[in-house]
Amino acid sequence: MASRIPLQQLSRATTTAAFPRSFFSQRLPASVTAARSLATVPPPARSSLGGTKDGKGTAIVLLNMGGPSAVAEVHDFLSRLFADGDLIPLGPLQKYIGPLIARRRTPKIEAQYSVIGGGSPIRRWSELQASETCKLLDKIHPSTAPHKPYVAFRYAAPLTEDTFVRMKADGVSRAVAFTQYPQYSCSTTGSSLNELWRLSKKFDAEGQIEWSVIDRWPTHKGFVGVVARHIEESLKTYTEEDREQVVLLFSAHSLPMSVVNRGDPYPAEVAATVYAVMQHLNFKNPYRLVWQSQVGPSPWLGAQTSNTVEEYVKKGQTKLLLIPIAFTSDHIETLHELDLEIIAESKQPGIKRAESLNGDPLFIEALADIAKTHLESQGRTSTQMALRCPMCKSEKCAEQKA
Amino acid sequence: MASRIPLQQLSRATTTAAFPRSFFSQRLPASVTAARSLATVPPPARSSLGGTKDGKGTAIVLLNMGGPSAVAEVHDFLSRLFADGDLIPLGPLQKYIGPLIARRRTPKIEAQYSVIGGGSPIRRWSELQASETCKLLDKIHPSTAPHKPYVAFRYAAPLTEDTFVRMKADGVSRAVAFTQYPQYSCSTTGSSLNELWRLSKKFDAEGQIEWSVIDRWPTHKGFVGVVARHIEESLKTYTEEDREQVVLLFSAHSLPMSVVNRGDPYPAEVAATVYAVMQHLNFKNPYRLVWQSQVGPSPWLGAQTSNTVEEYVKKGQTKLLLIPIAFTSDHIETLHELDLEIIAESKQPGIKRAESLNGDPLFIEALADIAKTHLESQGRTSTQMALRCPMCKSEKCAEQKA
Repeated sequence: MASRIPLQQLSRATTTAAFPRSFFSQRLPASVTAARSLATVPPPARSSLGGTKDGKGTAIVLLNMGGPSAVAEVHDFLSRLFADGDLIPLGPLQKYIGPLIARRRTPKIEAQYSVIGGGSPIRRWSELQASETCKLLDKIHPSTAPHKPYVAFRYAAPLTEDTFVRMKADGVSRAVAFTQYPQYSCSTTGSSLNELWRLSKKFDAEGQIEWSVIDRWPTHKGFVGVVARHIEESLKTYTEEDREQVVLLFSAHSLPMSVVNRGDPYPAEVAATVYAVMQHLNFKNPYRLVWQSQVGPSPWLGAQTSNTVEEYVKKGQTKLLLIPIAFTSDHIETLHELDLEIIAESKQPGIKRAESLNGDPLFIEALADIAKTHLESQGRTSTQMALRCPMCKSEKCAEQKA
Repeated sequence: MASRIPLQQLSRATTTAAFPRSFFSQRLPASVTAARSLATVPPPARSSLGGTKDGKGTAIVLLNMGGPSAVAEVHDFLSRLFADGDLIPLGPLQKYIGPLIARRRTPKIEAQYSVIGGGSPIRRWSELQASETCKLLDKIHPSTAPHKPYVAFRYAAPLTEDTFVRMKADGVSRAVAFTQYPQYSCSTTGSSLNELWRLSKKFDAEGQIEWSVIDRWPTHKGFVGVVARHIEESLKTYTEEDREQVVLLFSAHSLPMSVVNRGDPYPAEVAATVYAVMQHLNFKNPYRLVWQSQVGPSPWLGAQTSNTVEEYVKKGQTKLLLIPIAFTSDHIETLHELDLEIIAESKQPGIKRAESLNGDPLFIEALADIAKTHLESQGRTSTQMALRCPMCKSEKCAEQKA
């Protein structure tokens, strides 16, 4: 049983840390320990705690891919996106091919952002979600207060690096990296965490900031409930007769088959979300999980959302409700791809989309509950985080999860 | 909104029947209606009902693919398997290519069955499951008693056709087609139902038998519980130190990407089972869903079970527990592919397999509970059954679900 990487390194993060000590120290801050030991004390007693011992509180850092807030930012956004081998693996020539693709795609994507109002609303929503979640956390988990909201985008402002530098300047000593992708993929949450880890080594070698990670929440009850409620609201817009015949099409961003076959956990976790939502709805409508936004010539996971809609219409099924299930805020893939390219193009009044979660107060409650549960827990990350994909060859992942 | 197939035909099975009237009549038999109206009456009162009014009771028909009980049956088994376009779509030349492939593969598969004891145990397990489930149903749902056990295999004895003819001869008037594939695929349960439907038109045009269908049960609590228990039992065979580091590899039969991309619901339902089991286990071990038994040159869904084991061993992760998650009884894919080709070949004592459910009394209880819930329900099939896959071109499916 000779092995090049000791077993305990692969899976030790279940009890200790998945990241180097400077990033995720094994020692939890006193405020967290205090909160944990007080978990069974009734709420009135807890509110008297009034914050962490050092008074610095807890940074809640919402991670997402981001999007250009203005048309002028599109090129920079695409350049970063195509430079990211975790998201779009272009091989050893990534740094040459990436910029070429970004430049070629810019005019088309600029036009799309112009049509949806000149930019992505994702920054606005993320900043709102972060600040509202923190306000709620101050109330429901005062022992780690004050909670300070940060947003860290991977490809647009506020960039992860800028946020990291700001956190250092703000004197943050305890931070929760809170992915806004409900389901984990190495392409999304994994990429954001690899970036955070890189920045941590670069800007915080002395370990001023103690980190923990909320790396996935595919079936959180509050999240599932609010998705189900948005579906119910959309179903109400159909006549009573039509309502139970509407096919629910849960649409998630697809992955290249190379990533799926590497063993990425995302497709299975998206399916878990869909099933949980259908359980909540008591399976009263027929449904399918479909996959959108495939690009390029290599094979991606299907069934494709656009083909699905086209083929159902051909089969006479013209009552379809599209439900974005892997992004929580509106962005180009809902506002342009689903609403314009698929729904408007179909010219079928029975084809609609459920609202994204955006600023829904019930969604904010769900986010606060996820963060509260995490702050109360023993774990630095989920048990799953420490397990590399079976066919993973990434040196970054090997190093980060070693 | 001109449509070639009226909408109501596509989704009407939610309240009525997915199959022609002769197969799934809208009228439920009096015994079922009686059982339903008595659903809130306490058990002692119900037991006095003592069976269906016509005294003929209810046939419980377990559907599965089956396997050759003896080496001599291998060729016939493979011939039927490769003739089934629902399982292995070979195009218009299926009837010529199928037999060729079957003949070519026979010696290799015969050798595999020889190694595992001369045949598949699936008939023995299925007959036991059917009879034990019926005994339990007689106790917990007496209003539809006596429950009579039948097994209908798609590619081996007892063949669906032979079972159908026997049911007719037995004077069966009410039958439940109970799939033994927990998760629905058009290749498996769909193929069995297409076959039943064909036989119904051929042998029962007058509609002597009233059918309903249990078409999927991916997250049934009892099923999930017994899978979790088998995992716990396997985990106990590791040392306490190793136990929490064991990676759980849930392994399901893969599908060709052409079937996945057509919109087959199977991958998402398998993922739902896996997630439910992990919830039951409180996510205490890292895990992955992987896919086995890929054949031929066309692309199949991954990550592949065999590659996964190989690559984890290379990464130093030698504590792996394989869990069959889409078949409930032992068969060649567990006894040969997992146990011999993957586990024995690896020569790693830390790589093991969880027991299949086979004759576990808790599994029988789960089957009886699934059947009881179905008998009490209003539905002939699940709501999902009526929805064709978006990219489905099958005339059989179109006709059956019209």
